[in-house]
Amino acid sequence: MPVGDVSLVPLLPIDGVKIGICEAGVRYANRRDLTVFEIEDGASVAVVTTQNYFVAAPVQVVRKHIRTHTPRYLLINTGNANAGTGQDGIDRALATCQALADKTGVNACEVLPYSTGVIGETLPSERIIAGLDKALTVLTADNWLNSAHSIMTTDTTPKGHSVQTTIDGMTYTVTGISKGAGMIRPNMATMLGFVATDAHISPELLQKILVDLTNQSFNRITIDGDTSTNDCCTLIATGKVGGLIDSENHAHYQAIYQAIKDVMLKIAQLIVQDGEGATKFITVKVTGGKTTDDCAKIAYAVAHSPLVKTAFFASDPNWGRILAAVGYAGVPFDQSRVSVSLDEIAICQRGGLADGYTEEQGQVVMSRPEITVSIDLGQGDCTDTVYTCDLSHEYVSINADYRS
Amino acid sequence: MPVGDVSLVPLLPIDGVKIGICEAGVRYANRRDLTVFEIEDGASVAVVTTQNYFVAAPVQVVRKHIRTHTPRYLLINTGNANAGTGQDGIDRALATCQALADKTGVNACEVLPYSTGVIGETLPSERIIAGLDKALTVLTADNWLNSAHSIMTTDTTPKGHSVQTTIDGMTYTVTGISKGAGMIRPNMATMLGFVATDAHISPELLQKILVDLTNQSFNRITIDGDTSTNDCCTLIATGKVGGLIDSENHAHYQAIYQAIKDVMLKIAQLIVQDGEGATKFITVKVTGGKTTDDCAKIAYAVAHSPLVKTAFFASDPNWGRILAAVGYAGVPFDQSRVSVSLDEIAICQRGGLADGYTEEQGQVVMSRPEITVSIDLGQGDCTDTVYTCDLSHEYVSINADYRS
Repeated sequence: MPVGDVSLVPLLPIDGVKIGICEAGVRYANRRDLTVFEIEDGASVAVVTTQNYFVAAPVQVVRKHIRTHTPRYLLINTGNANAGTGQDGIDRALATCQALADKTGVNACEVLPYSTGVIGETLPSERIIAGLDKALTVLTADNWLNSAHSIMTTDTTPKGHSVQTTIDGMTYTVTGISKGAGMIRPNMATMLGFVATDAHISPELLQKILVDLTNQSFNRITIDGDTSTNDCCTLIATGKVGGLIDSENHAHYQAIYQAIKDVMLKIAQLIVQDGEGATKFITVKVTGGKTTDDCAKIAYAVAHSPLVKTAFFASDPNWGRILAAVGYAGVPFDQSRVSVSLDEIAICQRGGLADGYTEEQGQVVMSRPEITVSIDLGQGDCTDTVYTCDLSHEYVSINADYRS
Repeated sequence: MPVGDVSLVPLLPIDGVKIGICEAGVRYANRRDLTVFEIEDGASVAVVTTQNYFVAAPVQVVRKHIRTHTPRYLLINTGNANAGTGQDGIDRALATCQALADKTGVNACEVLPYSTGVIGETLPSERIIAGLDKALTVLTADNWLNSAHSIMTTDTTPKGHSVQTTIDGMTYTVTGISKGAGMIRPNMATMLGFVATDAHISPELLQKILVDLTNQSFNRITIDGDTSTNDCCTLIATGKVGGLIDSENHAHYQAIYQAIKDVMLKIAQLIVQDGEGATKFITVKVTGGKTTDDCAKIAYAVAHSPLVKTAFFASDPNWGRILAAVGYAGVPFDQSRVSVSLDEIAICQRGGLADGYTEEQGQVVMSRPEITVSIDLGQGDCTDTVYTCDLSHEYVSINADYRS
């Protein structure tokens, strides 16, 4: 059961991107598990991949292909992560790229493969290849919501968002989808994001935008702190609307940047809302740090603390746990300057209990389904924000019982 | 319910240390909650304290007093951590030191205060002071086991160990006790360790031994990754046996070092065995690293991973989770050289599934109450080991339900 409102706005088509979906029977019958993105020639494509040093086979292929070619096709399967599979896994990923390239008349290096699902099992590449014709037959621009469904593994809700922004009479559209419900699902390799805009953005600037916004969205969410071997986020700019944007000084840059940010943040937050066993959506906002990195470290320490997360699950205003997590993040500070609030309620001032705070006030805030923890370090002007969920019995059940 | 055998060997007295215990009613009536260690003049005393930047009031006092004076008394209360209490907390800790100093004719700076229990409540220093006479009346060398009980908060078993080592006809004794069952208990500040030997060791060397062995024992255990605001470990050398040891080259040094290590490792491991909700005791041993620090980072990533810990709880040989955790520890490596075993069963070789491995073999190992995960990186000669437990429903219950 996801937390809060996870209804989606209509997912708008992006001129220059078509999506085809089919049931290839990768792991289960009667389940949409194969998705093909067709990108018109002339687009820019940027990719960020997992920071895990165990890199799944498809991710190794993505890294290689994107270095020399601009992708024309994205090929995504669920049901099998093709991770921990050695050279055979790479060969199989390459075979699926080659098959799709043969059918569409592009170079195999113009195909990027993505896999998500069980780790350590042989990729049934023959089933994927057999499904390609079916997926290519149904390519259409209006398939974003369907693709949000077809990339799901154990997600309980599809994740997608669209934003339009109009500047100087020009309307740009950004649409994105994502999947993931724990950083790793039981035996699953998880986070995938696909975002496209019809703006015309140079590859270099697009890559910069993607890295920057990934750091503010997908790299700022945590459910269990586990990073998967398959995480990838892809950003496409089809160039169908407006002139070339190759600098942050372009008059339209800020508006488009903000629209992409809105989409990426939304589809990242939807992952947390669908977090394994989540009953609360928690925003941890750290201000007053000397550096952004300091703020991020502290926000992550709080967001990862099992004790803080179980306190949220219990609706227990156990502020000592938050202070302790702030204190062990590895960032030195003067504790007499630190303040902590839960939503509008100050719980800690100058490192001690806030004046007038009552347990009842804390209880009221902690019972809400969405809570913001604000930590002011009082040491500088930097800030950072991380999004997480609580740690519930259901999390243990999902992760302990999945394979049994 | 602790994991495995937690029975204690007889805790031997240390000549030069006497311990007194009483019920001071700090938080509950009819519960031993006040402990006084009396250390004879002439001893060396070393202390390591929490690395948390939120430092509890008593720890601040300990750090100040140890800088200028050799402690003659340790004053330990449970039931209240005196943390998050600001200047008033420091004043109250100092008042208890002064009261004990007045009664025993020492300087207040020769008293070290330790508090463990609820965070954020005013220390009832008057009750502690009122209990001092009673504790001093019953000072005896044979009170180690009683003190292991009297420093417990929500621990389910007392933790202590004794080792004797004989060299050149000289018998040295080391005895230690500890408390803690999560790095932080719900509202509790946790880890305390007190170790004493009758050897004669210079203060400088004693401090070096303590730092070194803390890194191999208390700093190598993790239950939930949360570091408390009150953690302290104290090592006393009373100097009653043998000549002065002020160098690692002394003929008796290695034997005594090993005896202290045995005691500290045992009382650290007993904490993990009593870990909140623990059903399995896990040793994570990393070999073949370029540096010890690399090995520690990887061992901790595995030991902290909620997904790995829930897999152990479920007795599920879900090796993909272990690989993923190894991969995100922040240590670069060549995945084709990595091997992983569970006890005697190889599960991963050269970054892929081990030849001949079967799920049934993995299942057999994972069902054991004590399991060693061996990770060989194949990149160098360094090694490190971390001890942890699994993550169970009971952990969530203990931490979510405690205050409700």
